[in-house]
Amino acid sequence: MRYELYYWPTIQGRGEFIRLALEEAGADYVDVARGPEADGRGMPALMRFLEGAGEVHPPFAPPFLRAGEQVIGQTANILLFLAPRHGLVPDDEPSRLWAHQLQLTIADLVDEVHDSHHPIASSLYYEDQKPEALRRAADLLDQRLPKFLRYFERVAERNPHGDAHLVGGALTYVDLSMFQMIAGLRYAFPRAMARLETVYPRLIALHERVRARSRIAAYLASARRLEFNQQGIFRRYPELDAY
Amino acid sequence: MRYELYYWPTIQGRGEFIRLALEEAGADYVDVARGPEADGRGMPALMRFLEGAGEVHPPFAPPFLRAGEQVIGQTANILLFLAPRHGLVPDDEPSRLWAHQLQLTIADLVDEVHDSHHPIASSLYYEDQKPEALRRAADLLDQRLPKFLRYFERVAERNPHGDAHLVGGALTYVDLSMFQMIAGLRYAFPRAMARLETVYPRLIALHERVRARSRIAAYLASARRLEFNQQGIFRRYPELDAY
Repeated sequence: MRYELYYWPTIQGRGEFIRLALEEAGADYVDVARGPEADGRGMPALMRFLEGAGEVHPPFAPPFLRAGEQVIGQTANILLFLAPRHGLVPDDEPSRLWAHQLQLTIADLVDEVHDSHHPIASSLYYEDQKPEALRRAADLLDQRLPKFLRYFERVAERNPHGDAHLVGGALTYVDLSMFQMIAGLRYAFPRAMARLETVYPRLIALHERVRARSRIAAYLASARRLEFNQQGIFRRYPELDAY
Repeated sequence: MRYELYYWPTIQGRGEFIRLALEEAGADYVDVARGPEADGRGMPALMRFLEGAGEVHPPFAPPFLRAGEQVIGQTANILLFLAPRHGLVPDDEPSRLWAHQLQLTIADLVDEVHDSHHPIASSLYYEDQKPEALRRAADLLDQRLPKFLRYFERVAERNPHGDAHLVGGALTYVDLSMFQMIAGLRYAFPRAMARLETVYPRLIALHERVRARSRIAAYLASARRLEFNQQGIFRRYPELDAY
C-alpha cells in the first residue's frame, strides 16, 4: 500500500517525524503537497482535505496520513499507527504505550520550542512578539529544555536493554524522533546546545547513530530532506540563543 | 485490579480527564496524592515516583497511572490504555485511532488554554506575565478557541452514527473530555462562552448529556470532584475574558 503524507511542503515541522519513520521503514509513500499540481498534488490537494466538506474524520491540522480508506491525524497518533506495521516498535502493549508516552513528551517539547518564537500567536509574525519571545526563550533554555533533556537522558540510562536506545533493544520511532529533536535544537540554539550537549552524552550518541543508519543517511543526503529554515518549528534567531 | 492515579491533589487539571473516565467506568481506583500520608499516600507518594531512582519507565510529569506492574504517563496515553478495558471506545482500530486523534486535539487546546494565563513560563506567577497573558488570551478567544470549537462541532455533525457523540454511536472517553473542556471554558471565560455557545449547539448538548449521566452526576456531586480554582488549567481572570 502506498501511503499519502499530507504536510506543509516547505518545512520539516511536525511532518518530519513522520517522514523519518517512513524513510527508515523503506515504506512506499508520497509527500503529497510537494508533488506537482498537474498530478493532483501540491498545496491544493492538502487544502482540499482541510476544507473539504465530505471527510468523515477531518484532521484539525497537518500532518495527516492517508492509508487506504483511513485518514489519520496528529503526529504521535500517525506514528502509533505506522510503527507496528514496520517493525519500529516492540510487539508487546506495555512497550508500545511506553514508546507512545515518550513520543507525546517529545511532542510537548516541540510545542514549547515553537512557542519560544511564537509565545503570543501563531498568526502573528515573530517580529510582532519579539519581546515576549525573548522572555520565553530564556525560560526554555534555562529551565525547560534542561529538564526535558535530563529526563530523556535518564530514560536511556535506565533502559534495561542498554542505553543505545530509548525503548527496548533495537531502533524505534522514538529514537528517530530524538534524532530530529537534537538536530533541530542544534540548528535553532547552537550556543545553548554547545553548552548542554556535554551533559547528555547518551542522547548525542543516539543522534549520531541514527544519522549514520543507511536509510536515514541516504534520506538526509537526498532532496527529499528539506533544510531547516525560518518557517518551521526550529528557527535560528540568534537573539533567542543569547542566554 | 485497583488502579492508582497519581496527580496533583488540589486541582482538576489534566488529571480530571482520567478521573472522569475512571468514574464513568465505575473502576476501582485510588487518587493517591489525595490520600493520607499515614497510609503511604499524599504528596510524598507522588514525589517519590517523580524523583525515584528506581523507576524504569519514569513519567515526565503527572498524571500517571499505576495498573499492576505498569506505570503509564501522558493523559491521552492513559486514556488509550483504559478505554478499551472499560468499554469507553469502540473495538475496531480505526475508531480507536480516531478517538485518540480527537483526544490529542483536545490536549492541544488544553495546552493553549493553559498558556493563555502562562504564556512566558509555568514557573512564574500570572502577575509576572500579565501583559503577555492579555495579548495571548485575546488571540485565544478571537482566533484559536473558535477554530477548535468549530472543528469539534463539525466532527459531531459529520458523525455517521449521529451527532449525539463525537465517536461512534455510544459514549466514549472523548465525549467525557469534551464535557470537561466545556465546563472549564465556562468557568474561565464566562463572557466569551456566553457569546460562543450559541454557535456550537451540538457540543453544548453533548456537555449537558454527559453531565446528566448517573455516574458522572454522582461524581460531580461528591467530594471527589474538586472545584475549579486559580491553580488549575482553567482559571478565571476577568481581564482575560474581556475581549
